[in-house]
Amino acid sequence: MADSPNCDLKSLSPLQLFERVTEQGEKVRALKAGKAPKDEIDAAVRTLLSLKLSYKTTTGQDYQAGLPPKDLVLINNGTAKEEDEDLVDPWNVQTSNAKGVDYDKLIVRFGSSKIDTDLINRIERAIGQKPHHFLRRGIFFSHRDMDQILDAYENKKPFYLYTGRGPSSQAMHVGHLIPFMFTKWLQEVFDVPLVIQLTDDEKYLWKDMTIEKAYEYARENAKDIIACGFDINKTFIFSDLDYLGTSAGFYRNIVKVQKHVTFNQVKGIFGFTDSDCIGKISFPAIQAAPSFSSSFPQIFNGKENIQCLIPCAIDQDPYFRMTRDVAPRIGQPKPALLHSVFFPALQGAQTKMSASDPNSSIFLTDTPKQIKTKINKHAFSGGRDTIEEHRKYGGNCEVDVSIMYLTFFLEDDDRLEQLKQAYTSGELLTGELKKVLIETMQPLVAAHQERRKQVTDEIVKQFMTPRKLAFEF
Amino acid sequence: MADSPNCDLKSLSPLQLFERVTEQGEKVRALKAGKAPKDEIDAAVRTLLSLKLSYKTTTGQDYQAGLPPKDLVLINNGTAKEEDEDLVDPWNVQTSNAKGVDYDKLIVRFGSSKIDTDLINRIERAIGQKPHHFLRRGIFFSHRDMDQILDAYENKKPFYLYTGRGPSSQAMHVGHLIPFMFTKWLQEVFDVPLVIQLTDDEKYLWKDMTIEKAYEYARENAKDIIACGFDINKTFIFSDLDYLGTSAGFYRNIVKVQKHVTFNQVKGIFGFTDSDCIGKISFPAIQAAPSFSSSFPQIFNGKENIQCLIPCAIDQDPYFRMTRDVAPRIGQPKPALLHSVFFPALQGAQTKMSASDPNSSIFLTDTPKQIKTKINKHAFSGGRDTIEEHRKYGGNCEVDVSIMYLTFFLEDDDRLEQLKQAYTSGELLTGELKKVLIETMQPLVAAHQERRKQVTDEIVKQFMTPRKLAFEF
Repeated sequence: MADSPNCDLKSLSPLQLFERVTEQGEKVRALKAGKAPKDEIDAAVRTLLSLKLSYKTTTGQDYQAGLPPKDLVLINNGTAKEEDEDLVDPWNVQTSNAKGVDYDKLIVRFGSSKIDTDLINRIERAIGQKPHHFLRRGIFFSHRDMDQILDAYENKKPFYLYTGRGPSSQAMHVGHLIPFMFTKWLQEVFDVPLVIQLTDDEKYLWKDMTIEKAYEYARENAKDIIACGFDINKTFIFSDLDYLGTSAGFYRNIVKVQKHVTFNQVKGIFGFTDSDCIGKISFPAIQAAPSFSSSFPQIFNGKENIQCLIPCAIDQDPYFRMTRDVAPRIGQPKPALLHSVFFPALQGAQTKMSASDPNSSIFLTDTPKQIKTKINKHAFSGGRDTIEEHRKYGGNCEVDVSIMYLTFFLEDDDRLEQLKQAYTSGELLTGELKKVLIETMQPLVAAHQERRKQVTDEIVKQFMTPRKLAFEF
Repeated sequence: MADSPNCDLKSLSPLQLFERVTEQGEKVRALKAGKAPKDEIDAAVRTLLSLKLSYKTTTGQDYQAGLPPKDLVLINNGTAKEEDEDLVDPWNVQTSNAKGVDYDKLIVRFGSSKIDTDLINRIERAIGQKPHHFLRRGIFFSHRDMDQILDAYENKKPFYLYTGRGPSSQAMHVGHLIPFMFTKWLQEVFDVPLVIQLTDDEKYLWKDMTIEKAYEYARENAKDIIACGFDINKTFIFSDLDYLGTSAGFYRNIVKVQKHVTFNQVKGIFGFTDSDCIGKISFPAIQAAPSFSSSFPQIFNGKENIQCLIPCAIDQDPYFRMTRDVAPRIGQPKPALLHSVFFPALQGAQTKMSASDPNSSIFLTDTPKQIKTKINKHAFSGGRDTIEEHRKYGGNCEVDVSIMYLTFFLEDDDRLEQLKQAYTSGELLTGELKKVLIETMQPLVAAHQERRKQVTDEIVKQFMTPRKLAFEF
């Protein structure tokens, strides 16, 4: 999503911006004190206000003279993080950059591999069709061992897909659909079975929530997931609270992982402390275990060591780094991974969205009118302050949330390219761009709602019943 | 087991004994240097050897001049233990005293209550029969909230029993039967259902053992437990590895406990460290959960908050101190407890027996001949070195293992008292006492073996199938 270099204010660090604002404030004061011409003072004030706005956009804080921006604190392994590094773990995503997290740096830090043109071409050859636009556009940008999955596939060796969701609330937004839309596509083009874990136990452990509520959210979320169009004959969706009490194979894998991971290790990987409850400390094993086919004896007919491919957002990678470390020690194959970028909040790419803030994204329950209002009111714009400036200097696609959302949801490559060019050149105004986004999102959400209505309790029950899936291994 | 005061060498502390040996060694050297009469030197040497033997018996170490006995190290909560305190946790029982652990001190340290005459009398009134000799003889010596169980029982309110075993090997010894013999009696006299947990997951986590082996031991051990004579209609035996994958209610209680206990707490209670695997760290919740009737919806017909009574050896108390702390916070009643002393090794009461040392106890698979040889060869004697001395000074019942074993297994109170008096007075010789023990244990073990033979795989399967038990709540 962030290819062409474009150095503007928003690429400055919070501290650099702070210094620029301070500098400009001093300049304004000097001009005023020196009785400079009104035009000159006004121009300097406009620059100051613009700098202050940039500062607020980047840091999420109002500029306060003498109070430099708070450094982003410690990363999860407890060591001091470099000032310009992004914070990415399963519970936090923070960056100081309006363009969002620096994914190239993340690949280096996490030790994964970039999904490059060669790999995308190889996928295209293997499946005999154009790869999903999430791959073409770098939305799924990083992987682990995807080559091995393709080797296996080319040699007619089977694999299965595993993804999941933490049901923290009933309200899912369009960003939550990204891994599921992509997983659905993978299931179709590779024709493989899929397991989807709903970590209601995790949500109970982490949130101020009863077990009953977490379980209810899991079942509600299952409906939205099913509405993405998964093949009922090849998909098993499970709540941990349910499935742990249904499958001895699952618990055996959990306890195997738990034997091979120390508190020191989860402390390093997830940043747990001595004050954390023992449920959190042992939970990573529960997210790890579905990576092993023996956790699903009924699905795979008891066949073990079937290779697993996990599409997920990159913040989930710590769980699977741990899993890949343990796998060979318990005689299991390492799961392969495909990592996606984060879906940006309407307010900008600095943070992941929050399901508890209704204005931070477009929710799957939003009406067309709500969608229109939210986009018009909250979608962060890379446009200029006035139409004249915009026509003259053009908009900034790299920080514009409408462009970001269209990159996720507008499938037509040519149209997207046209929009980007027209916006960058200043030909397309912010209002016009937002209109395109509104017209893209409204039917998408309406269609989802229509499909979700079809998902009866009976269908949910079928998806969530452990059973042999329609696939021969 | 340790009532009448009897101050001999074996009641001295290791350090006191060390000083006596050193003193006596100097005396011998002085006599030799001073060319004392041979008789006098020989007598001093005999005393020295006897002192050295006492030292070895008490400390488990050979006397080494200039090297005082090692203090018993740290107790499980990481704080320095007082020199004369016993080490008691679920994995270690150590004492420096030949009479065994000081149980009165343990009651104070653990904060439990002594089972006194009043309580025993109340039990007798409640059940309308003579209490089990384990109660009468102080083998079950400590409790938590047994009064509440009796209140409930007298008001016709039901409760259930919960006990368990860690299946660390196929070989169970007679000491392993103590909690089960007592639990069987409780089941009979109170007419209540019983759940028995086999912690095969724990053994897999703690030992160098495969999951398959731990599970196999659980099923083998179940046969010995069933052979104790439990009522098949009122008893559910379960392996964790099995049952966790069978009951959503069980996992829900586990995760509830795990949410309410921190690593700091289990570190304090069980002495876990940062290098321990996350499986060990979270395991205490798995031993806690059967204390809540909602872990067994099929047994109690979904009825929750039924009071639980746990008969167990006192080393398991840390698990249930934790459970009782958590219970009110998750809306559950605290389990009540009845604690037993440890069953002594044949070699003496300083340590718990080890299933891996065949000579440390009488095993349930031993032949009559093996029983005879073991008792004659290994049962630590409180008798004197020569028949003459024994007749003159009498034996020491407090450290004599035959007397201890008979206290557990000889039901006839009068006979036991006669034997003790005759041994103390010197009238009964060690060989004669051992013969009584042999004649007590041989038929007991043979009868167990006979009952075990009747336990078919089908019967094991019935006991281990989650089902409604024959009891109305």
